[in-house]
Amino acid sequence: MSQPLTTEQSTKLVRANVAQSLGYVPGEQPTDTVTIKMNTNENPYPPSPKAMEAIAQVTPEQLRRYPSPSALDFRLAAAKVHGVTPESIMTFNGGDDLLSVIIRTCTTESDAVLFLEPSYSLYPVLTELHGARKKIVNYNIDGTTWALPDGLESAQAGLMLIVNPNAPSGHFNPISQLESIAKKFAGVLLIDEAYIDFASESALALVNRNENVILLRSMSKGYSLAGLRFGYAIGQPSLLKQIEKVRDSYPCDVLSIAAATAAMEDQAYAASTWDKVKSERKRVASELAALGFTMPESQSNFLLAGVPNSFSVSAKQIYQSLKERQILIRWWDLPRISDKVRITIGTAQQNDLLLTALKSILT
Amino acid sequence: MSQPLTTEQSTKLVRANVAQSLGYVPGEQPTDTVTIKMNTNENPYPPSPKAMEAIAQVTPEQLRRYPSPSALDFRLAAAKVHGVTPESIMTFNGGDDLLSVIIRTCTTESDAVLFLEPSYSLYPVLTELHGARKKIVNYNIDGTTWALPDGLESAQAGLMLIVNPNAPSGHFNPISQLESIAKKFAGVLLIDEAYIDFASESALALVNRNENVILLRSMSKGYSLAGLRFGYAIGQPSLLKQIEKVRDSYPCDVLSIAAATAAMEDQAYAASTWDKVKSERKRVASELAALGFTMPESQSNFLLAGVPNSFSVSAKQIYQSLKERQILIRWWDLPRISDKVRITIGTAQQNDLLLTALKSILT
Repeated sequence: MSQPLTTEQSTKLVRANVAQSLGYVPGEQPTDTVTIKMNTNENPYPPSPKAMEAIAQVTPEQLRRYPSPSALDFRLAAAKVHGVTPESIMTFNGGDDLLSVIIRTCTTESDAVLFLEPSYSLYPVLTELHGARKKIVNYNIDGTTWALPDGLESAQAGLMLIVNPNAPSGHFNPISQLESIAKKFAGVLLIDEAYIDFASESALALVNRNENVILLRSMSKGYSLAGLRFGYAIGQPSLLKQIEKVRDSYPCDVLSIAAATAAMEDQAYAASTWDKVKSERKRVASELAALGFTMPESQSNFLLAGVPNSFSVSAKQIYQSLKERQILIRWWDLPRISDKVRITIGTAQQNDLLLTALKSILT
Repeated sequence: MSQPLTTEQSTKLVRANVAQSLGYVPGEQPTDTVTIKMNTNENPYPPSPKAMEAIAQVTPEQLRRYPSPSALDFRLAAAKVHGVTPESIMTFNGGDDLLSVIIRTCTTESDAVLFLEPSYSLYPVLTELHGARKKIVNYNIDGTTWALPDGLESAQAGLMLIVNPNAPSGHFNPISQLESIAKKFAGVLLIDEAYIDFASESALALVNRNENVILLRSMSKGYSLAGLRFGYAIGQPSLLKQIEKVRDSYPCDVLSIAAATAAMEDQAYAASTWDKVKSERKRVASELAALGFTMPESQSNFLLAGVPNSFSVSAKQIYQSLKERQILIRWWDLPRISDKVRITIGTAQQNDLLLTALKSILT
């Protein structure tokens, strides 16, 4: 461009809250095949072969036409798996799309969105970009024990976002506690179950009993399809009908609908990857503890490993040293977690390489 | 669900403007292969075979990982075609995604979004769902001549949306007129070029000279990839950096990036479909005129055919009669166009079937 617009000029053309926001910084996505990626919580195993077959069967004629606005095939498959009606399922271009849509559906610029910290760092960004108020409530953290504080149910907010199991801690908030909140909270409670496939229990039954509860599900982690951008909501049909107005008319493309449907139908395959991840999670947690790391019990596919003061290196240095060894993990310069690193569970071989590298860094 | 939420209850959980909005109603998308679809402006020819090859080459490992947030491969291909830098290109989950994002980037609940009527009927819906004010300006229509009214450049609005060629009229607003508006307008001017591949000229040069101009492009029509959900913006990099904050981190999936990139690189193929559509457009317009229909000169892949009072059937009846014959066209019960039908240009064979059916209906 011959006359590039300066940042100062460009900010005059946009909303003040957008100009002031730093935006969201997603985890690094190296394209090489050497780096061991333990930074963005992908499932380490490939997707179901049936997803690949479904993609291969999509025709040029299907690409030429608009996709099914409602992704009916997927909704039928997911409804069967979850034991709900297809009308209780709504698809999105990834779970993050649902988060953006629900904030825009439930809150105006004068409402508040309530979320916990430390939690998924996209929540505050989406809230400030929408222009709503951020109502930030801190987790009670006692050593490696994380707990929801009392009184959430009486908060004044149009929307509450709770990811369960929590990210980045991996800890699990009891379903009974979530239901107590839902029963008294005046707004919508979105329970972000992006990592639920690695946990022992879902809040699914709450949807049926609480009109204001909506679940977020993702195909990215449990079904090894992060490259697809496919998430869905489970909620009561009349609330979903309101959300549908705000959602894009065709949020999911024919290829992702085909692949996500095939992956959802192949529950046996997906469950086999969850079992392997959970088994490796137990082993890695045990080995990290033996090295001196401290961590909450994780019901997710990652571990938040606390670096004790007695270590010769900081959490940041561990992150950097592993990166030099081409192993990517996640570290944030944020309150209460800057002394911790988050490690996605990999294959047994990847986990061995991580543990060997950590031993080398710590000695 | 055992305790379904009534509509009345659900509306208490969402914003008033969402509860009141009727939402957007996309054109019908029948899944049968018998219906001739001339209702949602798809390209009648299949996408480039290279797009299919690119899809077949996507690996399970690519699906397992997150896609490139910036869709770099596509941006390199599009930058080369348009003669701009890759930093001037930003990708979206379809053109509609860009429309939603630009409204949220540029306007608060107290700003206005300006758009023309009759024009793309998604603009008012997105504006009311965001909560911004609608500033609706009517096209000057004189017989089959459509023209932008004077004074748009001094309008008080954070954002102006002009689709060019216009939908549903297909008429083309002169680029010089758009530039005059851009030079004086205080907000952002988005020129929606969803149909530009069927026109004689683009507003591309305006981006370079006007910091507040942004173009919308789509792969749905010109590249026969409506099923993919892939659109992009062309704008000055610093303005795009602001928009990027509001956009999803990973709006496009690995499959759609691969297919859209291959299709963009295969300009010769795409151009061959544009030539055929333009040639058929000329023939169909001529035949419709011979039947007594009146219409603006179209630079798009559709015709807005006016039904004269002298006909024995109304526009609505023509739409219905064609639907009974399994030919879908578009009719709206909206001011100033309820006496017209919009017909997407099909293949020569499809157009022949349409014309034969029309002759039968009119006699």
